[in-house]
Amino acid sequence: MSESSSCNVDGKRLWQSLMDLAQIGPTAKGGSCRLALSALDGQARDLVVGWMKAAGLEVHVDRIGNIFGRRPGQDASRLPVAMGSHIDTQPTGGRFDGCYGVMAGLEVMRSLNDRGVRTRAPLELIIWTNEEGARFAPAMMGSGVFCGAIPLDVALNTADRDGKKVCDELAAIGYAGTAPVPGPLPQCYFEAHIEQGPILEDEDKVIGVVSGSLALRWYDVTVTGSEAHAGPTPMHLRKDALYAATHLMQDVVHIARDFSPEGRGTVGIVDVLPASRNVIPGTVRFTVDLRHEDPVQLEAMDTRLKSACGKLMATVDYPVDVQIKDVWNFPATPFAAPLVESVRQEAQARGYSYRSIVTGAGHDAVYMATVTPTAMIFVPCKDGISHNEAEYARPEHLEAGANVLLGALLAQAGVTGTVQ
Amino acid sequence: MSESSSCNVDGKRLWQSLMDLAQIGPTAKGGSCRLALSALDGQARDLVVGWMKAAGLEVHVDRIGNIFGRRPGQDASRLPVAMGSHIDTQPTGGRFDGCYGVMAGLEVMRSLNDRGVRTRAPLELIIWTNEEGARFAPAMMGSGVFCGAIPLDVALNTADRDGKKVCDELAAIGYAGTAPVPGPLPQCYFEAHIEQGPILEDEDKVIGVVSGSLALRWYDVTVTGSEAHAGPTPMHLRKDALYAATHLMQDVVHIARDFSPEGRGTVGIVDVLPASRNVIPGTVRFTVDLRHEDPVQLEAMDTRLKSACGKLMATVDYPVDVQIKDVWNFPATPFAAPLVESVRQEAQARGYSYRSIVTGAGHDAVYMATVTPTAMIFVPCKDGISHNEAEYARPEHLEAGANVLLGALLAQAGVTGTVQ
Repeated sequence: MSESSSCNVDGKRLWQSLMDLAQIGPTAKGGSCRLALSALDGQARDLVVGWMKAAGLEVHVDRIGNIFGRRPGQDASRLPVAMGSHIDTQPTGGRFDGCYGVMAGLEVMRSLNDRGVRTRAPLELIIWTNEEGARFAPAMMGSGVFCGAIPLDVALNTADRDGKKVCDELAAIGYAGTAPVPGPLPQCYFEAHIEQGPILEDEDKVIGVVSGSLALRWYDVTVTGSEAHAGPTPMHLRKDALYAATHLMQDVVHIARDFSPEGRGTVGIVDVLPASRNVIPGTVRFTVDLRHEDPVQLEAMDTRLKSACGKLMATVDYPVDVQIKDVWNFPATPFAAPLVESVRQEAQARGYSYRSIVTGAGHDAVYMATVTPTAMIFVPCKDGISHNEAEYARPEHLEAGANVLLGALLAQAGVTGTVQ
Repeated sequence: MSESSSCNVDGKRLWQSLMDLAQIGPTAKGGSCRLALSALDGQARDLVVGWMKAAGLEVHVDRIGNIFGRRPGQDASRLPVAMGSHIDTQPTGGRFDGCYGVMAGLEVMRSLNDRGVRTRAPLELIIWTNEEGARFAPAMMGSGVFCGAIPLDVALNTADRDGKKVCDELAAIGYAGTAPVPGPLPQCYFEAHIEQGPILEDEDKVIGVVSGSLALRWYDVTVTGSEAHAGPTPMHLRKDALYAATHLMQDVVHIARDFSPEGRGTVGIVDVLPASRNVIPGTVRFTVDLRHEDPVQLEAMDTRLKSACGKLMATVDYPVDVQIKDVWNFPATPFAAPLVESVRQEAQARGYSYRSIVTGAGHDAVYMATVTPTAMIFVPCKDGISHNEAEYARPEHLEAGANVLLGALLAQAGVTGTVQ
């Protein structure tokens, strides 16, 4: 067993901190509502900053409100080994999405303090501003600004539906900091998170060793036929836009299945017009979301989708027009292989069942991976549910993920000794 | 050639009357807007009643505002031979739907006057109140009340979106009549109408000999799977409600095609929830409209649809729940065989191309068919379009339909002589 894997977190304290944090903005069904930069977000920040200071961390805030809590290392010349996540939530969010990564990082700090472990490099716990994007778009705003992907002035001038701006709301809760952005880069970055999908639970694995994020392509598809009365129009004279569109909707699923297990294909929004019970639809608009870990495979999925669009008229054997518009193209982000391997080794050394996994959801770690070596650690969540009050993760899984985080951090930071 | 078929209408006068009527409530794109019982509907009624009186008709109005214009017959003991349609329109309606049946009837009266033709039975031209149902639901209100299918007090107390009632609006335009409803039945009833479908145009036929109306069944279908994130959820662990629902939507079309040519199947309204680009749909609700001339065949279509719903879980090979709810069941209405045959004979005698056809749309004639022998005459409309400003019918087709109407009427009423 490695030196680091002999050191464990306190699972009960971790769970209690998560439950205490969830008391701020609790929802009727056991979730949390703390929209970014709301008064409740401010209260949660104050609570966690208090805990960080109590754990001896040196806290500072940058201009987009990201919070940094540093535990000094023995070697002042070394860049910090960082970890973090977010504590803002969806409007009817859960208690674990984001909060787990921050509380796991805090628990790591506390456990190292308990055991008097000293590291060569400093350790830093980061709370990112507005990861959810539920109140202010886009999501992952704080890490995006920190990494230079989103201009600071654009972020600060972003308004919510009531016209309130990020800059004013940051000031109102006391988190308009002064540290510069884009920020000074850490040596590397780790983020622990609930999976937000069903794979680990389905395969009864405790740890997801995240190899990177899926590449993503979004499309808007419009199928145009001819609107006509449902009664007087016989089947052979119809140009039913919906019947035609259903073939493409099925193609999206079939394409993704053919590129399994990493291919994903989803039709999420469908508008059927004119939306009358006895009128044959003349126009159908729908969205397509295609994902794959491998950009080459995603490109092949794209080609098949566009080919299906081009052949639709032949498929249904009546005239329809199909327009497919590329809306967004987000590249795959592979995580740093040495860090991913260290996560795998920690899981193995501690005897946790694990599997390699990719993240389909966006995370602050995906931005961080563009500027510094990054890895993520997933733990299972019940039924793959997140962004929902029903979100749940088992205490023993949260503890296991925090132990892997601790071990992986120490492997990067270097342990110089313990006082225990 | 029969006696009646030697008598022809004046096609130019018919066209001019239609164009003159269309000047009341004209729309930007060449259609008409005369919602039932609006001031414009009142103006149109006044114009047509003036024409009816000028043609020597005795005009009276019943309690739901239906207008009757009678041309006396030689035999006062005979019930009238009636014809008619409506002059209210959809909000962006056309110039022919309904108006054609009334103007064709008026043209028949004028032509008989021109030629001094006397009939044994009286002839009666009827303008039905609120056929469209666009302002006051349900549609076919005037004929429904006249035939006893809709209680008078229910109809009179029906309010539009602004809370204005049928009774008050009838009085406001001066058409709150005193003739009793349900009304005294005519000997028989004919209605000329544009087809509102593409069949006659597609087959290059001039006259549609309408044998009756299709039976109709409406359903609401709900498919429930599991909502989940599009990114983290691999294809084999999804319970995509939309992918499942698309199979049923296609079944609706396939079932109707298998019951061609009279089978119809339409999915008109589709709601996909939660309607987010990167969320796998958890619930899909959609409507189904199935029609067939033969109730036994429609029952077989119903059985196939419900069987497809029951087998959906096996079809897609993952758990989904399917609920199908019967919403409406409207029986087929066959028209009176002798009248249908007389329409066919008139078309044949005059050398017009024709075919037997059923009406998929609702008409005042469908109510009348439940109380007195009834038939309809269809003429082609461009691209099958109606309920639209682009609605168009060719003058020569309108003239042909009016000639068939004239001939069929005379065959029922009996000609006693001409003064010309």
